[in-house]
Amino acid sequence: MPLTGKEVAEHNSSKSCWVIVHGKAYDVTEFLPEHPGGTKIILKYAGKDATEEFEPIHPPDTLDKYLDQSKHLGDVDMETVKHEEKVETPEEKERQDRIARMPGLEQCYNLMDFEAVAKNVMKRTAWAYYSSGADDEITLRENHAAFHKIWFRPRILVDVEKVDFSTTMLGTKVDIPFYVTATALGKLGNPEGEVVLTRAARKHKVIQMIPTLASCSFDEIMDAAEGDQVQWMQLYVNKDRSITKKIVQHAESRGCKGLFLTVDAPQLGRREKDMRTKFTEAGSNIQSSSQTDNSQGAARAISSFIDPGLSWKDIPWFQSITKMPIILKGVQRVEDVIRAIESGVQGVVLSNHGGRQLDFARSGIEVLAEVMPVLRERGWENRIEIFVDGGVRRATDIIKALCLGAKGVGIGRPFLYAMSAYGQPGVERAMQLLKDEMEMNMRLIGCSSIDQLNPTLVDTRGLSAHYTGVPTDNLGLSVYDPLITPKEKAKL
Amino acid sequence: MPLTGKEVAEHNSSKSCWVIVHGKAYDVTEFLPEHPGGTKIILKYAGKDATEEFEPIHPPDTLDKYLDQSKHLGDVDMETVKHEEKVETPEEKERQDRIARMPGLEQCYNLMDFEAVAKNVMKRTAWAYYSSGADDEITLRENHAAFHKIWFRPRILVDVEKVDFSTTMLGTKVDIPFYVTATALGKLGNPEGEVVLTRAARKHKVIQMIPTLASCSFDEIMDAAEGDQVQWMQLYVNKDRSITKKIVQHAESRGCKGLFLTVDAPQLGRREKDMRTKFTEAGSNIQSSSQTDNSQGAARAISSFIDPGLSWKDIPWFQSITKMPIILKGVQRVEDVIRAIESGVQGVVLSNHGGRQLDFARSGIEVLAEVMPVLRERGWENRIEIFVDGGVRRATDIIKALCLGAKGVGIGRPFLYAMSAYGQPGVERAMQLLKDEMEMNMRLIGCSSIDQLNPTLVDTRGLSAHYTGVPTDNLGLSVYDPLITPKEKAKL
Amino acid sequence: MPLTGKEVAEHNSSKSCWVIVHGKAYDVTEFLPEHPGGTKIILKYAGKDATEEFEPIHPPDTLDKYLDQSKHLGDVDMETVKHEEKVETPEEKERQDRIARMPGLEQCYNLMDFEAVAKNVMKRTAWAYYSSGADDEITLRENHAAFHKIWFRPRILVDVEKVDFSTTMLGTKVDIPFYVTATALGKLGNPEGEVVLTRAARKHKVIQMIPTLASCSFDEIMDAAEGDQVQWMQLYVNKDRSITKKIVQHAESRGCKGLFLTVDAPQLGRREKDMRTKFTEAGSNIQSSSQTDNSQGAARAISSFIDPGLSWKDIPWFQSITKMPIILKGVQRVEDVIRAIESGVQGVVLSNHGGRQLDFARSGIEVLAEVMPVLRERGWENRIEIFVDGGVRRATDIIKALCLGAKGVGIGRPFLYAMSAYGQPGVERAMQLLKDEMEMNMRLIGCSSIDQLNPTLVDTRGLSAHYTGVPTDNLGLSVYDPLITPKEKAKL
Amino acid sequence: MPLTGKEVAEHNSSKSCWVIVHGKAYDVTEFLPEHPGGTKIILKYAGKDATEEFEPIHPPDTLDKYLDQSKHLGDVDMETVKHEEKVETPEEKERQDRIARMPGLEQCYNLMDFEAVAKNVMKRTAWAYYSSGADDEITLRENHAAFHKIWFRPRILVDVEKVDFSTTMLGTKVDIPFYVTATALGKLGNPEGEVVLTRAARKHKVIQMIPTLASCSFDEIMDAAEGDQVQWMQLYVNKDRSITKKIVQHAESRGCKGLFLTVDAPQLGRREKDMRTKFTEAGSNIQSSSQTDNSQGAARAISSFIDPGLSWKDIPWFQSITKMPIILKGVQRVEDVIRAIESGVQGVVLSNHGGRQLDFARSGIEVLAEVMPVLRERGWENRIEIFVDGGVRRATDIIKALCLGAKGVGIGRPFLYAMSAYGQPGVERAMQLLKDEMEMNMRLIGCSSIDQLNPTLVDTRGLSAHYTGVPTDNLGLSVYDPLITPKEKAKL
Repeated sequence: MPLTGKEVAEHNSSKSCWVIVHGKAYDVTEFLPEHPGGTKIILKYAGKDATEEFEPIHPPDTLDKYLDQSKHLGDVDMETVKHEEKVETPEEKERQDRIARMPGLEQCYNLMDFEAVAKNVMKRTAWAYYSSGADDEITLRENHAAFHKIWFRPRILVDVEKVDFSTTMLGTKVDIPFYVTATALGKLGNPEGEVVLTRAARKHKVIQMIPTLASCSFDEIMDAAEGDQVQWMQLYVNKDRSITKKIVQHAESRGCKGLFLTVDAPQLGRREKDMRTKFTEAGSNIQSSSQTDNSQGAARAISSFIDPGLSWKDIPWFQSITKMPIILKGVQRVEDVIRAIESGVQGVVLSNHGGRQLDFARSGIEVLAEVMPVLRERGWENRIEIFVDGGVRRATDIIKALCLGAKGVGIGRPFLYAMSAYGQPGVERAMQLLKDEMEMNMRLIGCSSIDQLNPTLVDTRGLSAHYTGVPTDNLGLSVYDPLITPKEKAKL
Repeated sequence: MPLTGKEVAEHNSSKSCWVIVHGKAYDVTEFLPEHPGGTKIILKYAGKDATEEFEPIHPPDTLDKYLDQSKHLGDVDMETVKHEEKVETPEEKERQDRIARMPGLEQCYNLMDFEAVAKNVMKRTAWAYYSSGADDEITLRENHAAFHKIWFRPRILVDVEKVDFSTTMLGTKVDIPFYVTATALGKLGNPEGEVVLTRAARKHKVIQMIPTLASCSFDEIMDAAEGDQVQWMQLYVNKDRSITKKIVQHAESRGCKGLFLTVDAPQLGRREKDMRTKFTEAGSNIQSSSQTDNSQGAARAISSFIDPGLSWKDIPWFQSITKMPIILKGVQRVEDVIRAIESGVQGVVLSNHGGRQLDFARSGIEVLAEVMPVLRERGWENRIEIFVDGGVRRATDIIKALCLGAKGVGIGRPFLYAMSAYGQPGVERAMQLLKDEMEMNMRLIGCSSIDQLNPTLVDTRGLSAHYTGVPTDNLGLSVYDPLITPKEKAKL
Repeated sequence: MPLTGKEVAEHNSSKSCWVIVHGKAYDVTEFLPEHPGGTKIILKYAGKDATEEFEPIHPPDTLDKYLDQSKHLGDVDMETVKHEEKVETPEEKERQDRIARMPGLEQCYNLMDFEAVAKNVMKRTAWAYYSSGADDEITLRENHAAFHKIWFRPRILVDVEKVDFSTTMLGTKVDIPFYVTATALGKLGNPEGEVVLTRAARKHKVIQMIPTLASCSFDEIMDAAEGDQVQWMQLYVNKDRSITKKIVQHAESRGCKGLFLTVDAPQLGRREKDMRTKFTEAGSNIQSSSQTDNSQGAARAISSFIDPGLSWKDIPWFQSITKMPIILKGVQRVEDVIRAIESGVQGVVLSNHGGRQLDFARSGIEVLAEVMPVLRERGWENRIEIFVDGGVRRATDIIKALCLGAKGVGIGRPFLYAMSAYGQPGVERAMQLLKDEMEMNMRLIGCSSIDQLNPTLVDTRGLSAHYTGVPTDNLGLSVYDPLITPKEKAKL
Repeated sequence: MPLTGKEVAEHNSSKSCWVIVHGKAYDVTEFLPEHPGGTKIILKYAGKDATEEFEPIHPPDTLDKYLDQSKHLGDVDMETVKHEEKVETPEEKERQDRIARMPGLEQCYNLMDFEAVAKNVMKRTAWAYYSSGADDEITLRENHAAFHKIWFRPRILVDVEKVDFSTTMLGTKVDIPFYVTATALGKLGNPEGEVVLTRAARKHKVIQMIPTLASCSFDEIMDAAEGDQVQWMQLYVNKDRSITKKIVQHAESRGCKGLFLTVDAPQLGRREKDMRTKFTEAGSNIQSSSQTDNSQGAARAISSFIDPGLSWKDIPWFQSITKMPIILKGVQRVEDVIRAIESGVQGVVLSNHGGRQLDFARSGIEVLAEVMPVLRERGWENRIEIFVDGGVRRATDIIKALCLGAKGVGIGRPFLYAMSAYGQPGVERAMQLLKDEMEMNMRLIGCSSIDQLNPTLVDTRGLSAHYTGVPTDNLGLSVYDPLITPKEKAKL
């Protein structure tokens, strides 16, 4: 016989704390101190239905994995659970109005457009989680801005009637040289989560990288793939290597074609926009004296398992447990690319984690421009596949990266925004727009296939130094009190 | 006996589609799928008078050329055609008000002023077509901005009482070293179209380049010339070379003095400002699910004949069919200038198509600064005439180009804007202003004739690198959500 | 017996044109076509009292010099002249209100402050004449901006208890290393004109350079000097050298200590802000079809006598007619400084005429940084006195120029603004503020006397190239139509 | 028997001037002309209670030190002193309202946030004193901006589980490599003054530098320290060396561990924001003709004793009177660092006095980048401890300085702002935020201890030249009148 709402409601304190998730009750009393997101957030739902809060930031197999079966209390008769009437805030009302007046999908002509729409229609907290970056968000913005410092030296009078921009990444043939890179918590943007991206990737024949911190479970995302669709796996390495081993070997057995070890996140970043938004949302009922942990954004809450001790010494162990190609994601200087090659890994992603980790880290594209001449001098340019992510918004950005020597680029947030605003059709249109731009711009640069892209087609003098284009110091400017000239006397 | 409106109106579907143009009916049913601008736009006028829409984007000989005589149905009694009452939109009303309050022509003191007025008084779609550029319009703006990175090193105490800035281009003596470069669809700005430019060019003794995609027919524009007035021809090369041959030889026989082969447009560009404007104009009656081709601007519609296979191998063929000097328009790097010289053509235009094709292509003036030192090192600087277009707005811009080694510069949009705002008097005043500025600035730089202009008169250190002045990333900035400092509590 | 207003009023056309100036009538009928400012402006006052318009732009001896005595018709009984009731425009009313609420002089803490106040309280046309520059006013702004690219490398632990910043220019001892440079039409800003500057210069023991185009006569300005006060003369060279010779020798006989030949103005500049303001003032009663010469600012009107044929060949002649030191004002590149030294002149002013002549001319301070290393290499640095003007607003600017090798700097507009806003006390305070800043900053840079200033005290790497800081392209930006993201549907 | 208010009130003129401070009366008649802050400000309180004005800018022992005991008139019966009813101005009312709505301390996520809050809640004059800088405040802003020109080259795959960022400065172990640098007049921000900083520094185990111009007395600040807490002393050298000697030896005897001689302030700076604010506050009752000394900010008033004659020759004398390490604070070029080493001092602070002295002085961090390569070339990098202050706002700024070779950084204003807004908890949170950022960013840069920080971890190409990022010329821009395009005719 199912539990009643009333029974559950009695366990509403840290002494005895039950919560309902997807129609089932769980006793989390003992788990409270271990919860990575903190005790407080669970206690808010003690004795109540926590599904809506739980859903986007926990894969569905979370409770099975982390909560002992003895604490699974079974079904609840949801008819008996008191439904909390949600009062629609004025902000939410305005958001619903904006949703009602959303521009049509066909009005989105480029990837920025999806971001503009998503900013308007997403929940503020979800937007803040996706869009925020580290500290002053200098690197966040530099990532795209860096592409604007690279100019073209196009060839003319080349036969470009037929343009083929398909290529190969880690042995997989793809339609266009980008992949969907790993981004966390897809259900914040769309109730279905990452599988939406899987389906769109299949349509356009591009690779999806599955994130460790997905809202969907790993298997759900694999299951959403069809035919010979290829997926890669992004991995945050767990302090407990036996868990890591299980995850890696499971992925390989499921058919994953690449293991991307994240190496730029020994600790997940402080993102003040995210932190500030959460505080604002929590609103006035938080007493200023309380020692809340709300200074920790969602990312920190869900990532405490990550091993800050991961080091070069661990690489051979990974090579011993899997035959998947191993790629280091988050390499940021040429010295480490060389070391990666010497370690025998198959690839690196020049990346700063989308500007979410170390502020003032340089853009991946700038690091690429530093890396390739050194590799070419050694004759090592083909010993490894080099990917770049961060700030890619236009096909010209992709072309620039490939001219400089990248094998392909990762694109993350733009697809999240397209998904959050328009669901799968949005993601598909975003990908189609990139293909349209790609065909056009391959022609205009005078190349009919990917292998013709080369460094003489770009002028990178503006990139090779940070002589200009430091993104605006918004906080600094907002607190600076500019000098003024003499004031007139007041009007009488 | 002429057709009646009623008879025509019955053929209002894709099954039988008649349209009226300039008082005559045409059966375009079979032509529908071939229409470069798409089926949809014709069907909008099925059974109706399409003249107003047809006019600016089709030269008058279009129907004769492309529609079999059997489909020419003859005169229509226009009295019987139902006149569609046009409802004046609030936007149009505001525009008419702005036209009524236009500044006087004598208030325009520089070329920017015409653009400011034109923006206010032109139809939004026409403005969008003329003013738009590729992608983020970075190159569009860089074109003018690049001139701002070049500074003067003027000479003093030179006798400049008499200043003569006439010069010679491809053997033709001109009053001042610019020509009216080719721009499409002149009737969008003025009902008479390109002949307005012809007449103004005659007044000021400068050369006009006739565009392939003119609203007027080629012969109309030739016919508008008087006396020994010189015109050149800009050519988009047709996939069907027999058509191209006919066009070229016709031009030569009519007395054209130069053949400018466009080499930077194997496919015409995506211009999002243009696309977005068209969508907005079309308004709410477009169903969001429809598979419209409105993502294609006017340029794409009228340019599907262009051959993306055009290559260096075609140059000898052109040389075999005409004796006109051949000039490659759209060269963008020194390697291709060298190849052009080796191919035996008479000139190149360093151009990026007014920023309408490949975004992040460098400005013509920057390419010029790259090209000339290489040519001089080889002693090749006189083997070819080098022109530059893009962004020229001031006589100082012309002087800068000539100091760096150009023979002359092309100016396009400013004359379109002057024509759109004020007709022929506008274009003439624009040209006169350039002459006034030219006289002044030749004096101030200390040169009394064109041949005295030389590289020591300019400081190009700022130009030789893209270290600064990347035009603003408007889309990127509009979607970026700046960090804020703590918010005060709400007022009670 | 004096003439009556009625008698004068009858001569109100181009056939017979009399005007009244300072209570006397003049017959200017035959002079009309010769008037440098054009016929139209005189005809506006035909038969009327033109004093107010005449006053600021003609030195008092103008009519004696240029109009034959036979055309001097004698006194007019001003009681009988119809007084034109001036209607106070709303703009003038607002200006009077701003004057009533002017900040106190003691609220001006730097030279910019005077400009801010002057902008508010001056007549629009006067402000436009003083503040305008050539073309896009890039050079106008670069002049000051260039100083912002120079940074200090101050010394510490130097005894600076006593700081002496007096120095010597062309043999004259001055309190501080600046002089009041020549600026035209002082009565536009103050009814007394340039003599106000003379008196303030005396108070602060600095040199005044007397402008050719002063509102006061040359002798009035000389007469306003007291004791051993030193003045220099700025000269626009007349096409008629006999006039020039008379002027120069008169100046020498009156005790002028330096002859500054303007060499950057063979023709006076087009200043669009000035032109546009005049048009606006003239207002709606000008028919748009009229061929007005309002495109010529005040400067052009009064400067048609200037000889554009002046050249290096004339220098020996000047040396033959005067013993005053000769200084070339407006030198703009190192080649011409070398030639000046070879010509045996005593000095040069590195200047671009306050940004009023050739736009994109480099700042004087940048030219100085180019010049001095070349001179030092030749050991020529002491063969000539080098001055700089343009953009000086702070004592730190003066110090920068002197560190780089200048003997002194010229300051013009700031004193005009101080005079226009506050009269002589304003000019004196402006000079005192510079002295206060100078004492402070000499101490802070670690120098107790002028001769200690040297190039190691400044970091000019930012200046030596135009890599940054190109002043804003205001016209270009105002006509550019930025890209936008998709628009929401309209609210219902 | 105490004096009565009435008795004191009779001495209200320059002939006999008594004032009340903290309940005691003083006869300052003879002292008036000697008062560093001018006569006027004292006379404002003649015969009245001056405590509130006196308090923040005079240490409590001032009257004992500088006013002869014979002028100490003893207690006043404060009941009899007429209490001046203060009228709350609208500005003060608005400020009180802002204080009531202050954000909670937990909403401050970075050091900029404290500044934003402090700007809102501090008295305008206090804010102006703390926040102002020299001249155009270019250096003030450059200080922070310079850090934005330095980018990271982080290492990956380094074991950073344990991160230790403690270090040693002048032999003292500290938790984190910053110290609280000396800033004047702490009571302007908080009634308790500098001891608040002392207590917070103890909590976080960082060193406080005690300012000469503190609001608290030196001994009060020393007394506020606890246990083995270390403090340093900042010294403005008095013209009277016997006073200086007494101060230094007293500090040593009290246990001060470092003597920081200020060498960049032979005269205290003109800070126009401060000057203008004071004027505005004084308001309309100041007659414009009066010769006020309000052009001198608070700093000038309290600093007239500073010796502008201090020079390298004085260093041996300091070494003779104390065994404390001597550090020169305000060194600004490599030549002077070398001389400092040769003089045998223990350290230098590369500083420009927080941008308050010489405008266009370079940032300390830029000077550091100039200094270290020269020292390393000589092998002198360990002969001295090098500190940097100015513009530090983030842990990444600290890390950048240490990578470049600094031993530690000084932070001043941010703690003043935190104290002014939130008192001691504010300062503590500010320090904690820096520690949180420090831990995170040490991990992200791939270093687990301070000694691992090195120059290969930063990219300083953007810093080594002033090619970009000159802070905005606010005054210049505010007076510049931008060009406009033609105006439409007026609406009818």
